[in-house]
Amino acid sequence: MSRFLSKNYEKLVPYTPGEQVNVKVIKLNTNESPFPPSPKVKEVLSEEVIDKLNLYSDPELKELRSAIAEQFGVTPDMVFCGNGSDDVLAFAIMGFCGAGGKLCCPEISYGFYPVYADIFGVELEQIPLKDDFSIDANNYIGKNKNIVIANPNAPTGLTLTFDEVEKIVASNPDNLVIMDEAYMAFCGESCMELVKKYDNLLVTRTFSKSHSLAGLRVGFGIGSKEIIDDLNKLKYSFNPYNLNTLSIKAAAAAIADNEYYDDKIAKIVVTREKTISQLRESGFVCTDSKANFIFASSNKITACDLAAELRKKGILVRYFNKAKIDNYLRITVGTDEEMQTLINAIKEITEA
Amino acid sequence: MSRFLSKNYEKLVPYTPGEQVNVKVIKLNTNESPFPPSPKVKEVLSEEVIDKLNLYSDPELKELRSAIAEQFGVTPDMVFCGNGSDDVLAFAIMGFCGAGGKLCCPEISYGFYPVYADIFGVELEQIPLKDDFSIDANNYIGKNKNIVIANPNAPTGLTLTFDEVEKIVASNPDNLVIMDEAYMAFCGESCMELVKKYDNLLVTRTFSKSHSLAGLRVGFGIGSKEIIDDLNKLKYSFNPYNLNTLSIKAAAAAIADNEYYDDKIAKIVVTREKTISQLRESGFVCTDSKANFIFASSNKITACDLAAELRKKGILVRYFNKAKIDNYLRITVGTDEEMQTLINAIKEITEA
Repeated sequence: MSRFLSKNYEKLVPYTPGEQVNVKVIKLNTNESPFPPSPKVKEVLSEEVIDKLNLYSDPELKELRSAIAEQFGVTPDMVFCGNGSDDVLAFAIMGFCGAGGKLCCPEISYGFYPVYADIFGVELEQIPLKDDFSIDANNYIGKNKNIVIANPNAPTGLTLTFDEVEKIVASNPDNLVIMDEAYMAFCGESCMELVKKYDNLLVTRTFSKSHSLAGLRVGFGIGSKEIIDDLNKLKYSFNPYNLNTLSIKAAAAAIADNEYYDDKIAKIVVTREKTISQLRESGFVCTDSKANFIFASSNKITACDLAAELRKKGILVRYFNKAKIDNYLRITVGTDEEMQTLINAIKEITEA
Repeated sequence: MSRFLSKNYEKLVPYTPGEQVNVKVIKLNTNESPFPPSPKVKEVLSEEVIDKLNLYSDPELKELRSAIAEQFGVTPDMVFCGNGSDDVLAFAIMGFCGAGGKLCCPEISYGFYPVYADIFGVELEQIPLKDDFSIDANNYIGKNKNIVIANPNAPTGLTLTFDEVEKIVASNPDNLVIMDEAYMAFCGESCMELVKKYDNLLVTRTFSKSHSLAGLRVGFGIGSKEIIDDLNKLKYSFNPYNLNTLSIKAAAAAIADNEYYDDKIAKIVVTREKTISQLRESGFVCTDSKANFIFASSNKITACDLAAELRKKGILVRYFNKAKIDNYLRITVGTDEEMQTLINAIKEITEA
């Protein structure tokens, strides 16, 4: 630490992203899609577009916000775009919960929520899950605090129903409810249409998982015009040109290509279900994940050891050294071939 | 405003970026380069790279930090990269001056500094310029506050000498001095080598001006390893993957192509000097700008009227409705042809 850092940040513990590697491995540790982005992305990143990079990107992001709005049947002024959905979550927690505000989230969830609470001085309550790792919606009814919930939740993949989400939103009218739908495309029940009915709901999404664009860094939030105006006020006070021209064009092209992504998402869901069955047959306990990852625990080997053994075989999975989930692995759903290699590797390890 | 925004941000007045337009105009209002980026940028943004966007970008930005470090003769751990230099400045002011810290800057300077102070709760002192718009270095000697100075300054284009900067840095050993060198490539005296001698100096740069990549959103700061570690701590608590893969690769390729950019920068400097001479011959007062813009005031027409008249002719320049500079225009240096069109338009307007 330098001598100059504010005392507020002395004890800040940053988020630890999953490992990024260059060597040839089967990478099932950071919930990326195993498929390349839509071919439309290559088309729009033309030489003409690159030659115009001397000009600033559009700070209003009109092209992208319109494309997103069209997909979800809302108006562009209900869409806020960020440099990844982390950027959207950061602005939302800074703006609506910052400096002494109150926020609650599930105790086991996206590891970034407590980090945001820490950096922005938010009083965070982490609410335990049920024993089966599911979220008890009743814990959030009439909570009278701001709420952030990942749905499907990470790393469990478990979901709240549409009705449960509506009860949470409706019963906390004076607080903001952030539903983080990063993994929603893989067949949960989205609450997106509730943004038209409730002014205290912000639904966030990302291009990183379902749209094969983790390396592009684009996420978005949809909510009432007033909430989006507030987020833009913060953005224009922090980094007005927060998306570059290539991200804007590529993401706008991607989100319009439903045919391509519907096919890829369907493949991932089929592979997920097949892999969960195989793991259960091999003595694993798996949650009913509705995300592009599997949350699994073996009855033959500890999660920590299994992750280490898989790593020796060139397969990366995510192990969290954290109470209550330290005997589970989060395994991204790759291609059918990759998952078969994983299953074979696990058999070799557990039968050795 | 929504009902949910923290009281802290109720009165926040965001930064106003220069207008971005789609129609065909001569755009001399946001200090973009008139030249396309290096051809090397197109080469590295290959189809193979785009097809791999399903994978996360490198949060450590190793490729880009190494390329920048090599250019400036420092080690990569002395380089922090941001999503534009606004991102670097935001993290620096948040981390080193935030929550009650003290900061000073020139009264006439980059309009974002007071916005950062506002959003991060910093006590800001804005120090007047001399009557000729130059910065009096003596005002910053032994100041005992954090300091941010744009060198060359904006919108004046005037510079501090290397010796003046060193005196400021050396006389404030217990405070951070941020030298914002966004426009330094256009022939000022950089203080970059002082980062090896002083641990309280952070020098920021951008790819937006000299490197024709405003639309790519890449900036960086160079300072002691401890300062860079602190900035990374904040980044990993806010948005770990803050640059996308395309930005990393394109910026790394660009900064290595000295031959291309030296030529373009030299052209801009020649055009700047020629245009300043022509304006002075036409009765304008111009500062001795060392940036890629001209700061000019006519004795025949108010700046506000001139900007409006130029706009009618399809030429955009930047007018600041702000005390002390409201009779000056900031005019980006475009190509020789664009500047000749500007000069001709000004003659038509002022002789009409």
